[in-house]
Amino acid sequence: MKQKQKAIILFSGGLDSTTCLAIAQSKGYECYALSFSYGQKHSSELEAAKRLIENSTVVQHKVINLDLASFGGSSLTDDSIAVPEDNNAEGIPSTYVPARNTVFLSIALAWAEVLQAKAIFAGVNAVDYSGYPDCRPEYVEAFQSMADLATKAGVEGHGVVIETPLLHLTKVDIIKKGIELGVDYSTTVSCYQADSKGKACAVCDSCRIRKTAFENAGVVDPTIYK
Amino acid sequence: MKQKQKAIILFSGGLDSTTCLAIAQSKGYECYALSFSYGQKHSSELEAAKRLIENSTVVQHKVINLDLASFGGSSLTDDSIAVPEDNNAEGIPSTYVPARNTVFLSIALAWAEVLQAKAIFAGVNAVDYSGYPDCRPEYVEAFQSMADLATKAGVEGHGVVIETPLLHLTKVDIIKKGIELGVDYSTTVSCYQADSKGKACAVCDSCRIRKTAFENAGVVDPTIYK
Repeated sequence: MKQKQKAIILFSGGLDSTTCLAIAQSKGYECYALSFSYGQKHSSELEAAKRLIENSTVVQHKVINLDLASFGGSSLTDDSIAVPEDNNAEGIPSTYVPARNTVFLSIALAWAEVLQAKAIFAGVNAVDYSGYPDCRPEYVEAFQSMADLATKAGVEGHGVVIETPLLHLTKVDIIKKGIELGVDYSTTVSCYQADSKGKACAVCDSCRIRKTAFENAGVVDPTIYK
Repeated sequence: MKQKQKAIILFSGGLDSTTCLAIAQSKGYECYALSFSYGQKHSSELEAAKRLIENSTVVQHKVINLDLASFGGSSLTDDSIAVPEDNNAEGIPSTYVPARNTVFLSIALAWAEVLQAKAIFAGVNAVDYSGYPDCRPEYVEAFQSMADLATKAGVEGHGVVIETPLLHLTKVDIIKKGIELGVDYSTTVSCYQADSKGKACAVCDSCRIRKTAFENAGVVDPTIYK
C-alpha cells in the first residue's frame, strides 16, 4: 500500500481552517494540526480547535505557546486596543497581528521538515481577507520561494508546498465547499471576542463577515451567539 | 536632535551575534535584543546573552520561549541525537535546527513592525556556515522579499531591512572586526554543549571553528573551556 503523504494544517478552530482541514483530508493527506496559543484575547478558539480535532482523524495536534502579545500592536492581543465593532475602518484594521501568518507558517515549516510533510495548508483568503497584507497571493508566493531556500528538505529538492486552497474563494464559496465536504460549522469559532464557551459577539469584523456569508450562501447560520 | 533609528538584533550570546550587536551600535542604531529559549541543550548561551546585554546600552532584551525541541530533528534540541564531535560529517550537519533562522527572523519581523524598527540584524554567515541552508545569501534575499510583502509596514513602504553584516566574512574577519569595535569575547558562548557556567567543550563543530579562527586571527582565545 502506498504510504499516505503528510500535511500540516494551520488550525485555529475557525471557519476557514476547519474547511482547510476538510480539503486536506479530502485530498488523501495524513493530517497534522498546528495551533497557537499566542496571547489572543479570544483563546476560546483554542478550546474549539481541540474539540474539533478530537472528533477528527487528525494524527497529531500540537498547540504551540508563543507570546506574541508581549509585542502588542494588535487589538487581538493588546488589552489597550479595543476590537472594532463597526465597519468604518479604512486600510489595514487593528485586528491585524504583526507578521502573524509569517510566524505561524515558519513554525509549521520547522515541523514539516521534521515530519517530512509534503504540504502545509493555510486558510488564508485574499477575497474577504479584511485587508491583511499576509493574506495576499503575492505574499504566499514569496513565502514559498523563501521556504524552498530555507530548509534542508528544500535544498534536497523535496521541500514542502504551501497550500492555500481558500486563497481566491469568497466566504460564501468557502462555506459551500465545507458543506459539500460535510463540515459541521456549529462548533467552529471565528469571533475575535468569543466568550469562554466560544459564544460569538456578532459584531466584530470576523462575526459580521461570517454571518453575512451564511446568509448569502443560503445556509442557516449555526453560530452560537452570546 | 534627530531621533535614532531602531534595530532588532537576533542575539544568542555567541561570537557572531555579539559582533553583530557591536556593528549595529557602531552604525548608530538604538538596539533591541531578541533571544530564544527554544529547547536548546546549550541553554547557558541564554545566561551569557543576559550578562552581555546587562553590560551594554541595549534598550530592551526580550527572551521568547518557543518549544522547537518538541519537533525534534536536531542534535541541538533532541536528546536522542548526540552533538557531533568530529569533523567527518558530510552535507548538512545534525546541528541544523529545522527552519530555525526563518522562525527567529519571522518573530523578529513581528516585533520590528510594532517597534517601527528600521532593521533586523542577524549574524548569519555564509563562509564558515557549517552547511546550514538558512545562512546563504540567496536565502536572506528571499526572506527580505517575503518580509516586504508580509507586513503592514512593508505594504506602506517603510518595511524593515534584514541586515547580515557577517554574511561574507570569514570567522577570522568577524573576530578582527569585533576586536576593532571593542568586543570582549571572553563571556560569549558559542559551544553547542556548554556547561551550566558557559564553559565550552572544545570539540563540537562550533568550538572547533571558533578555536581555529582565534588562532588564525592571531588573537589569544579568551574562551573558557571545561
